[in-house]
Amino acid sequence: MQILGFPDSEQPAQALARHLGCDYGCVELHRFPDGESRLTLPSSLSSSGTLIFRSLDHPNDKLVELYMLSRDLRERDIPRLGLIAPYLCYMRQDTAFHEGELISQQHIGHLLAQCFDDLITVDPHLHRTSTLHEAVPVKRALSLHPTTLMAEFLKTWPDAVLIGPDSESAQWVEAIARHSGHEHGVANKQRLGDRTVRIELPSINVKGRQLVLVDDMISTGHTLAQAAGALLERGADRVDCLVTHALLDRDAESMLHSGGIDKLWSTDAISHPSNVIALTSLIASAVSDLAESYR
Amino acid sequence: MQILGFPDSEQPAQALARHLGCDYGCVELHRFPDGESRLTLPSSLSSSGTLIFRSLDHPNDKLVELYMLSRDLRERDIPRLGLIAPYLCYMRQDTAFHEGELISQQHIGHLLAQCFDDLITVDPHLHRTSTLHEAVPVKRALSLHPTTLMAEFLKTWPDAVLIGPDSESAQWVEAIARHSGHEHGVANKQRLGDRTVRIELPSINVKGRQLVLVDDMISTGHTLAQAAGALLERGADRVDCLVTHALLDRDAESMLHSGGIDKLWSTDAISHPSNVIALTSLIASAVSDLAESYR
Repeated sequence: MQILGFPDSEQPAQALARHLGCDYGCVELHRFPDGESRLTLPSSLSSSGTLIFRSLDHPNDKLVELYMLSRDLRERDIPRLGLIAPYLCYMRQDTAFHEGELISQQHIGHLLAQCFDDLITVDPHLHRTSTLHEAVPVKRALSLHPTTLMAEFLKTWPDAVLIGPDSESAQWVEAIARHSGHEHGVANKQRLGDRTVRIELPSINVKGRQLVLVDDMISTGHTLAQAAGALLERGADRVDCLVTHALLDRDAESMLHSGGIDKLWSTDAISHPSNVIALTSLIASAVSDLAESYR
Repeated sequence: MQILGFPDSEQPAQALARHLGCDYGCVELHRFPDGESRLTLPSSLSSSGTLIFRSLDHPNDKLVELYMLSRDLRERDIPRLGLIAPYLCYMRQDTAFHEGELISQQHIGHLLAQCFDDLITVDPHLHRTSTLHEAVPVKRALSLHPTTLMAEFLKTWPDAVLIGPDSESAQWVEAIARHSGHEHGVANKQRLGDRTVRIELPSINVKGRQLVLVDDMISTGHTLAQAAGALLERGADRVDCLVTHALLDRDAESMLHSGGIDKLWSTDAISHPSNVIALTSLIASAVSDLAESYR
């Protein structure tokens, strides 16, 4: 088995290969001024089963490159080809929210399933789709959850209260609290307009306490900032955030700041200065489950 | 038959539909801050054969979007689906120039052939590949040449001399001159390094005359600028350029300027301020050849 990384995933890909004690190579990437990509395989390439490691934030260039790479490796008779994408793109457009909208989740899922035999990802944003396999119909689709890693991280603050900012986040908050024993609750988010939401806090006494908002991802930071504002208004001493995917828009940090959030913590699913939890061990154990097929 | 455009191809797509007297719709495109694309079909969509009009400069986002769109339209039982891409991407990486390099032309050609039944393009950059169909194995692959349109445009300067800057451009220069009757010649380009070329001019007396450099595309502008410099040194009065594809890098205009080039003229295959030749009529006649299959 070998792991292939890209310049944008070199560090976690290499850490994973080291952890597993398997071969590692980095695909060389050049982007021309006209927007085309040129890929060069590492000279160390072996013909064993191959897992490509690449997180799929800002995905379009990456998808075209993965398409080319997967076809090239198939032509070289690589026996099995998998993708490790800690962040999986295009999962949010899982229905036509307005007439005529394309359901990108299905199309991109089909593209990935065409390229790869297997997929490993972390906390995919699945709402109206019940399983990862339904979204990305590969042979084996493994969806990992960094629950125990997050619980371990939060042990430093045993008295903190964990809050999910909306009902969708209940599953993460409850799973973490089950491991860590933290007090926890879930807020209720009502969307009043495109950028206006009302947050109803759970009935927990937050006065003078440290709160940690827990969610699968942050993009605009709007919901988390609103929830933090509401908690501070109720007398919370400090509010931090812990997310799996730090998919921050340009203005998200100032949004978090304006909401009074102290620290943002994230896993390294998407590379970002807020990364505090490495997913290496979690992904390594999933790879071990697949290892039989990749010898 | 209907033509579908994108916001980036609206003007030429609409002009083509008007010229052909067929239905036209524009696909709505939204790019999210996280780099994902959302497409919305026009409400006027019919279920007839469909030609999508989109030039493929800066192609990666566009390729992902075309993949999604083609799958969506197939699901709606559109009977035949074609692509009109006046500029066709990824044709230059048609071999591994260094060990391990992926041959992008083949992979992207395969992707396009998966999405579309037919392809219409203009002056594709084919060197080591002998036919367009070999590069993009669709049912019908039509490669158009704006020779007569360029000859028509150059009639304003009957005494100009047409020069191809290298042997690869000989085919365009000779074809245009055959129609326009201009005196013409072809220079010889020797590549001395990554960014150094030596230009050997043809034995034509250029003193005091207007020269027009003719090529299929301009990207860095380096070759054209060098050729212009050599012509002006030999006493040329004025040097202009005429190309099919204005695929200019960021520094190309200052490169042309430093080479002493007066005007850059191009077709509208890629939208650019230098566009002076509309390809509508040329593309319309090719569409008419396909029309039988698109009723």
